[in-house]
Amino acid sequence: MREYGFGVDIGGTACKIGLFRMTGELLEKWEIPTDRREGGKHILADVAAFLEGKLEEKGIQKEDVEGIGVGIPGPVRPDGSVPLCVNLGWENVNVREQLGRLTGGMRVEAVNDANAAALGEMWQGGGKGSGSIVMVTLGTGVGGGVVLDGKVVAGSHGAGGEIGHLTVRPDENVPCNCGRKGCLEQYASATGIARMARERLAQGRQPSVLRHTREVTAKDVFDAYKAGDALAADTVGEFARVLGNALSNIACVADPEAFVIGGGVSKAGKPLLDAVEEQFRKSAFPSCAGTKFALASLGNDAGIYGGVRLLMG
Amino acid sequence: MREYGFGVDIGGTACKIGLFRMTGELLEKWEIPTDRREGGKHILADVAAFLEGKLEEKGIQKEDVEGIGVGIPGPVRPDGSVPLCVNLGWENVNVREQLGRLTGGMRVEAVNDANAAALGEMWQGGGKGSGSIVMVTLGTGVGGGVVLDGKVVAGSHGAGGEIGHLTVRPDENVPCNCGRKGCLEQYASATGIARMARERLAQGRQPSVLRHTREVTAKDVFDAYKAGDALAADTVGEFARVLGNALSNIACVADPEAFVIGGGVSKAGKPLLDAVEEQFRKSAFPSCAGTKFALASLGNDAGIYGGVRLLMG
Repeated sequence: MREYGFGVDIGGTACKIGLFRMTGELLEKWEIPTDRREGGKHILADVAAFLEGKLEEKGIQKEDVEGIGVGIPGPVRPDGSVPLCVNLGWENVNVREQLGRLTGGMRVEAVNDANAAALGEMWQGGGKGSGSIVMVTLGTGVGGGVVLDGKVVAGSHGAGGEIGHLTVRPDENVPCNCGRKGCLEQYASATGIARMARERLAQGRQPSVLRHTREVTAKDVFDAYKAGDALAADTVGEFARVLGNALSNIACVADPEAFVIGGGVSKAGKPLLDAVEEQFRKSAFPSCAGTKFALASLGNDAGIYGGVRLLMG
Repeated sequence: MREYGFGVDIGGTACKIGLFRMTGELLEKWEIPTDRREGGKHILADVAAFLEGKLEEKGIQKEDVEGIGVGIPGPVRPDGSVPLCVNLGWENVNVREQLGRLTGGMRVEAVNDANAAALGEMWQGGGKGSGSIVMVTLGTGVGGGVVLDGKVVAGSHGAGGEIGHLTVRPDENVPCNCGRKGCLEQYASATGIARMARERLAQGRQPSVLRHTREVTAKDVFDAYKAGDALAADTVGEFARVLGNALSNIACVADPEAFVIGGGVSKAGKPLLDAVEEQFRKSAFPSCAGTKFALASLGNDAGIYGGVRLLMG
């Protein structure tokens, strides 16, 4: 293994770039804007030019760089090609080949950004010390990533770790963004938590401090929960029940060493984790009941860490 | 890769042993009784003696044998040790070490028998041509095995592929054998199908040819279904709905190329597979909707095939 590696996390508005020692130390990080004009054709060239500039500035030889690991906001095939990425305006872009050529033959690996984040958290984040984790990102939606024995489970159709779309309530009437009904994302995302609280408020059966809040958000619900509000507690209970059950089902398939919980919702911290973990222990298959739970710790840097970990194979 | 390999499937009453070419051809197979006396301490010695005898009989040199791949009816650790196997009376038996020693240093690999069967079906059975499959065994219970990129997902706690214990109905009142409630096994096993039909019969709302059957079995239900019986059709519909949904959830985690369905219930064949597949396509995450379905084809030999495939790493 050479001394340095680059992690690149390409997003719809900015590309995060990190220079790492291959031992896991983030030396420096930067952001450059994502130029989505003309089908996103400048994006990889911009990244390549930036990297070349940094190598020169730092006086680092290419021979000392293991390679460039890239996270993409869309599905990536095993050969490093991206069939379609709406966020970047891409169609049939082979990241491995193109970025390799643009950097004069540097080694490039690419993977979906959620999977890169999972890999990063496994390596240097909340899952450090575990080779097999399932990362659960609770944000506006629910994302995920499965890493088994240090390798990302990208899936045969790019849907490995799409845990936000586990059907947890087949009898649901409200549709999910994906067009189906009863997806985990409808209950375990920030949007879902706020919706569940608003439904309870609309039923009007319980008094609640949230009655005075105009647009109830997930954060309001968690704040009220911590302050002892009963309606908020019921909402968090429902969230924890649905998510805990879903995780117990994931454990019966992939049986990870640890679940790592990240995303905006996870900012509610320990009380939230405790509620989900408690439900998991109740519903888990006995031999999985000891599965560890951890909060993600790398935040928005998880993807660049994961990019570099990807270079370790 | 050497020319020959042995696959061994150790069961509670008999050990199946197969001599293979490493290309996948089963040359000959045998069964020897499983001697469970004295904590099962004779089992591996019996297998070793049998193998040595066969090598001599066939005039095969040990140098031409890649190794022995063994399936065990219980959890197996990555180092080839079995912490506890009630069916064999074993406690802390390291199959890799002991059988290796007993055969004069032959290479031994061991894995749980359900996972061995999945690996066998991927290699030479219903999943042939796919590197990533989920095997679903519908028998008295529901078992499973996950193989991704040619490797078994044994799991961090030996629960990889324990899909019979996915909680599909958290509101179920009847307990599963595992002590929890609402497991897939309670609806998708032969036992479960018969139970669901009996419950419908007891409700007495529908006429059915099954009313004249004394002890309704899953086979009776499938026969009546094929003959156009409405109550049987409703039962099969429920079975297909629960199983199809569960498989769509598994696809959101492991995203295999194909599902391979085996076990006694799968003997009902194509109509059954069609019903499950139809439900899967309805409930699957869009990018997984094209996941293939196949019937297992190796029957009881799946485990010995998988044992040999295990030697290929």
